[in-house]
Amino acid sequence: MSWWLEACQQPNDAAKQRAEARQLQLTKPTGSLSELERIAILLASLQNKDQPDIQAPWISIFAGDHGVMEENISAYPQAVTRQMLLNFTTGGACISVIAKEYAATLQVIDCGTVGDAYQYPHVETHCIAPGTANFAKQPAMTEEQSIAAMNLGKQSVERAVKEKASIYVAGEMGIGNTCSASALACMLLNEAAEQLTGVGTGIRAEQLAHKKQVIDRAVALHRDDVQQDAFKALCAVGGLEIAAMVGAYIRCAQLGLPMVIDGFISTAAALVAVQLNPAVREWMLFGHQSAEYGHQRLLQELNAEPILKLNLRLGEASGAGAALGIIKLACHLHNQMATFAEAAVIGEKI
Amino acid sequence: MSWWLEACQQPNDAAKQRAEARQLQLTKPTGSLSELERIAILLASLQNKDQPDIQAPWISIFAGDHGVMEENISAYPQAVTRQMLLNFTTGGACISVIAKEYAATLQVIDCGTVGDAYQYPHVETHCIAPGTANFAKQPAMTEEQSIAAMNLGKQSVERAVKEKASIYVAGEMGIGNTCSASALACMLLNEAAEQLTGVGTGIRAEQLAHKKQVIDRAVALHRDDVQQDAFKALCAVGGLEIAAMVGAYIRCAQLGLPMVIDGFISTAAALVAVQLNPAVREWMLFGHQSAEYGHQRLLQELNAEPILKLNLRLGEASGAGAALGIIKLACHLHNQMATFAEAAVIGEKI
Repeated sequence: MSWWLEACQQPNDAAKQRAEARQLQLTKPTGSLSELERIAILLASLQNKDQPDIQAPWISIFAGDHGVMEENISAYPQAVTRQMLLNFTTGGACISVIAKEYAATLQVIDCGTVGDAYQYPHVETHCIAPGTANFAKQPAMTEEQSIAAMNLGKQSVERAVKEKASIYVAGEMGIGNTCSASALACMLLNEAAEQLTGVGTGIRAEQLAHKKQVIDRAVALHRDDVQQDAFKALCAVGGLEIAAMVGAYIRCAQLGLPMVIDGFISTAAALVAVQLNPAVREWMLFGHQSAEYGHQRLLQELNAEPILKLNLRLGEASGAGAALGIIKLACHLHNQMATFAEAAVIGEKI
Repeated sequence: MSWWLEACQQPNDAAKQRAEARQLQLTKPTGSLSELERIAILLASLQNKDQPDIQAPWISIFAGDHGVMEENISAYPQAVTRQMLLNFTTGGACISVIAKEYAATLQVIDCGTVGDAYQYPHVETHCIAPGTANFAKQPAMTEEQSIAAMNLGKQSVERAVKEKASIYVAGEMGIGNTCSASALACMLLNEAAEQLTGVGTGIRAEQLAHKKQVIDRAVALHRDDVQQDAFKALCAVGGLEIAAMVGAYIRCAQLGLPMVIDGFISTAAALVAVQLNPAVREWMLFGHQSAEYGHQRLLQELNAEPILKLNLRLGEASGAGAALGIIKLACHLHNQMATFAEAAVIGEKI
């Protein structure tokens, strides 16, 4: 059996019940901290802790290039993918600042970008392929390439667990990858590009219309081979960094590490992961609702309530990373607020 | 002229333009950090700084009791107001944990609660009145009482400025005060209670219907005297803690201290402040949209986009306090991210 189909850990129900009981005793009107209560209770059950916390967050950014860039579907040139990898590790990118803010470990993994062999300090380079093939013309990845990328995600989570990470965030970098994520979502949800395609990093209206045509044609090209099989869809129109996230998400659930899902591309990967292994869903928190058209639909499909709605559309784990602050606060409130008894406050309604 | 009508400071336009220009140079697609960019640019213009920051947040909680509690409009007994004041200062309340999380100074001011004279360490006690009068039968406060409460807010801000606070948050504690805030909003917006009244700390449906009747009758009782004058409305159906927040908000704008508005009651106070002195609005950030019915309408009235939407309904500055983490992150991203030139990343679209 393929490793990604193996069973997931089960959230701890007793810890959940204790957390729910504690929330009822804290000095506030019942339920008045709403989402912050929900986050703390969920983390208590996932971490099996009476004092949930995210003291050691782990953020992995997976990068990959996309053959579909040949079709002129992005606002920025492909070279930006690699340039940003250096920026992640030297502290200048959004996610670098976020990782510092929340004392997270930041791991940067190149799964396959276009260009000659290279070495950047602190970038883990793997060249599964120099970018995917152009999915407008052929499958983006072979099955072997997809599995190799999923294994990179798996290994990243295993390392995070070994280094005692308390919560896992996957992010992505890959110029052109909203096009891949939209095509993937269209495949999985049997929808037209119109429903699930947005402007990505900021293409113009006429380029958006073209991007939708490219996606619709590609989905039509691959549909018979894929037959709504999530793994085959991933191979047909996915990306190396997307496959790595799929592997990471599944491994988190198998090893019992809570994760925070980022924006549109991450959520498309999350949908693949959940279709492959439905119990993975239980280990997911959703960091934010992005401005990318189609993200809301993907969140609904996963029955997900995002923590933040700040209209971000950057990727690189920025939304999930920003949500770490709220998750941390939710834990501290759960752990540090006084109970009615401790504070001698009347907790009974009139 | 009453002090609250005096001119406000003007946000710095040159600082705003420099901040906007910097955002365009940071290594991310144009506009992709959306609300986080907006927050940083606004703070740069309010603080007149190229590196906006909130290293020294100041949180003041104003407390007051409400005569309208005679009408059976709350889920919790009045004694909870004072009990919570002690809880704020001993670290057990939600806002205590939030203040610690963001290294904020927490000031607790009793403007007038029911009960004998008392001393709690770190609670500043003022007894303008032992709670307001029952506004279902007579004006809640005399003009002198309203002004005295507004002066407490003014003094709090003057102290925050003297102690070099970088941002100001006002919160409230007062069992029954959603009833007062709803009545105030109905007065100011010329609306029926149905449009602006919610369950507060959690009353049952039949009690909510009763609360709306109390408010509609009170608004009818006072309407001719008030004639949609914001100060008179505040006296007629407001609260001591609400008046203190009105004074604090206006003084922030007069002294040039950015502020974060909390939930329903704070936003009702913000509306009074803006009606009294419209330029106050420019100094306001809005921390969250609360679950309290009517808050969304008040936010619309103020053309406000709240940072968080977590369904909180606790008060005591919890939503504005939670937003401090996002505001801090927005500043750090603005200040610390690399520019395209610094990171040698292509910033031009194709």
